[in-house]
Amino acid sequence: MSIAVTGVRLGVAQAGIKSAGKDDLLVIALAPGTQTAAVFTRNAFRAAPVVLAERHLSANQGHPTHLIINTGNANAGTGEPGLAAANQCCNTLAELTASASSAVLPFSTGVIGEPLPADLICAALPAALEALQEDQWERAARAILTTDTRPKLRSVEVELDGQTCRVTGMAKGAGMICPDMATMLAFVATDARLSPALLQATLRDAVAASFNRITVDGDTSTNDAVTLSSTGGSGIEVKAGTPQAEQFAAAVTGLMIKLAQDIVRDGEGASKFVEIRVSGGESTEACDRVGRTIAHSPLVKTALFASDPNWGRILAAIGRAGLSDLNTDDVSIHLNGVLIAERGARAPSYTEAQGQAAMAAEDLVFEVALNRGGAQAVIWTTDLSYDYVKINAEYRT
Amino acid sequence: MSIAVTGVRLGVAQAGIKSAGKDDLLVIALAPGTQTAAVFTRNAFRAAPVVLAERHLSANQGHPTHLIINTGNANAGTGEPGLAAANQCCNTLAELTASASSAVLPFSTGVIGEPLPADLICAALPAALEALQEDQWERAARAILTTDTRPKLRSVEVELDGQTCRVTGMAKGAGMICPDMATMLAFVATDARLSPALLQATLRDAVAASFNRITVDGDTSTNDAVTLSSTGGSGIEVKAGTPQAEQFAAAVTGLMIKLAQDIVRDGEGASKFVEIRVSGGESTEACDRVGRTIAHSPLVKTALFASDPNWGRILAAIGRAGLSDLNTDDVSIHLNGVLIAERGARAPSYTEAQGQAAMAAEDLVFEVALNRGGAQAVIWTTDLSYDYVKINAEYRT
Repeated sequence: MSIAVTGVRLGVAQAGIKSAGKDDLLVIALAPGTQTAAVFTRNAFRAAPVVLAERHLSANQGHPTHLIINTGNANAGTGEPGLAAANQCCNTLAELTASASSAVLPFSTGVIGEPLPADLICAALPAALEALQEDQWERAARAILTTDTRPKLRSVEVELDGQTCRVTGMAKGAGMICPDMATMLAFVATDARLSPALLQATLRDAVAASFNRITVDGDTSTNDAVTLSSTGGSGIEVKAGTPQAEQFAAAVTGLMIKLAQDIVRDGEGASKFVEIRVSGGESTEACDRVGRTIAHSPLVKTALFASDPNWGRILAAIGRAGLSDLNTDDVSIHLNGVLIAERGARAPSYTEAQGQAAMAAEDLVFEVALNRGGAQAVIWTTDLSYDYVKINAEYRT
Repeated sequence: MSIAVTGVRLGVAQAGIKSAGKDDLLVIALAPGTQTAAVFTRNAFRAAPVVLAERHLSANQGHPTHLIINTGNANAGTGEPGLAAANQCCNTLAELTASASSAVLPFSTGVIGEPLPADLICAALPAALEALQEDQWERAARAILTTDTRPKLRSVEVELDGQTCRVTGMAKGAGMICPDMATMLAFVATDARLSPALLQATLRDAVAASFNRITVDGDTSTNDAVTLSSTGGSGIEVKAGTPQAEQFAAAVTGLMIKLAQDIVRDGEGASKFVEIRVSGGESTEACDRVGRTIAHSPLVKTALFASDPNWGRILAAIGRAGLSDLNTDDVSIHLNGVLIAERGARAPSYTEAQGQAAMAAEDLVFEVALNRGGAQAVIWTTDLSYDYVKINAEYRT
């Protein structure tokens, strides 16, 4: 079964930004009529390609013909020369394909603060165009990686009224992961046709439920971007306000959650995958804050690395999350179904042996019940290991 | 020159909470008439001794006769039995010294969630009382440590109108350090006499400028407490609203800043001491937020460990600190006096060699200028090293 999306061709090349012999350049060509929606980082320091991609997407009214993605250099913190370099890449691709420069969206990931070697990229663009094929998703998903150890590629078939369309997406990211509006880079495409408004709404809601729920290290990237392209190649049209739109949105959301979780599982130095479910809060925002405080606590994260059922550190993190008038007696914590803490202390039924058995699993679920309201939130995160320090002390992002 | 404070006696004993042969219990006896002010953690999960110490301090109107400090067990997350255990220690000391139980303030530090071995502590109290001497500050400062590698003990002479009084203090803390109102444990005493209101105000302001400006890992402890005791043993009285009160407050603040910095320098796994000065913000709160976002960034902290002048990560942290409408072109960053970034990019004058030379130092100053207002804030922090992970993956706090 092919995961290709009719109307989406991918071409990989080696520009020499990374070491010789490594794929580091990807061009995605979108068939005429394809509509693309995108969300970008809310970090105030936005990389040059983010600034330019957003500007071009507005100029071409959501109809870009090409996406250029390079790895090995983020083209962030590069000022005006960075914008000029991103522009040079778009211009060159536009000339080679006889399209408008504003029809090209640039994306970059890698080291921050180094000048983008635009000449290298431009020299490799013909090879990338030469290689364009619909069946290149897997090689493409590998070509966009940086400190990732494996590609993140997901595909799903959606049956709508007996007809079948497809959604395929890839993502990259392992560090500087705490997406706010979007994550590192993810490119999702479907052969269904959606109106611009429905496409953007579907993307926005799916990102809110997926990439914006994960964190590896709390550091929001300067280069985050997620796109959703709809080629219409399946002949299926999804209309706003219909049950099909809901079904389709659920499929996109499900796929993005899988990609987002793939990023966490491949988080820098990660040895655990942790789902933190916070319920019973006065608001989603309050539950979210508790979840993120636990997820970002270096003490919780190092305990996870040690497979130590250290509920005291979770409790301390909840306590500093800034909820007003938190009654600690109301709080309970379950770990993979085992009640470990209640009424501000270790649960009477809990034994250390239970906790250690539960913590030995690679996949963990922490359920925190605040018992002060009806709201809830989920956060997916990972541990903090020697390898996280090693990777980030040795790698210049 | 003695650092003793007339009216403050300290007695150390071995209760057997830590391994055999290790000091783990300290009693501080305060002469009659001594006034004590205290601030405690704002973590919603407050340890039993914090709850009881605050209650007792209110009941004795700031005139405790004894402080009991144990290490090796935080008596946090222990519910009602924890309160009972802390009470038992206070009651026993009260009986042994013929004072009221409410005149005793308990403090605990160490592992969270384990029952406090109150019987061991009570059995060792007579030995601690036996050992009470004014010249025991140094042994006392060692007795209260947990993962700390060295004692934090500071003393200063203050000359007021030709007369001399003394301020001596000790602190402990290396991990779970992000004080909010107070830090782990610090006990400061002076032989000057201050009114209760002036003593509390002096302590509050000094803590705000010292312990509340440091962070090792962003994790606010459940057991933070700082006390300031005034014995009046020097015969000097410091009155509110006088130049002497200002001089005295400056001395206390200076001493607490030194103790707070001692904690950062001894932070778990720390190899760097970093002062982050943020200026030009629209409010102190905004500058504080930028400073803490940089200080808590795992990517900045691992770059510090690697002595990597990775200004891109600092810039990314500033960008996600949540300032509204931040104009990144206005932001500049100096590292130990070297301009490394301006206008959202690497400074034209900057060379990697300069940056690496500056980063080789153990003491670093980052100056971040936001250029959008007149406010400023300072944060002291440290790096994130293999040893931080090792200590916290192996030690059960």
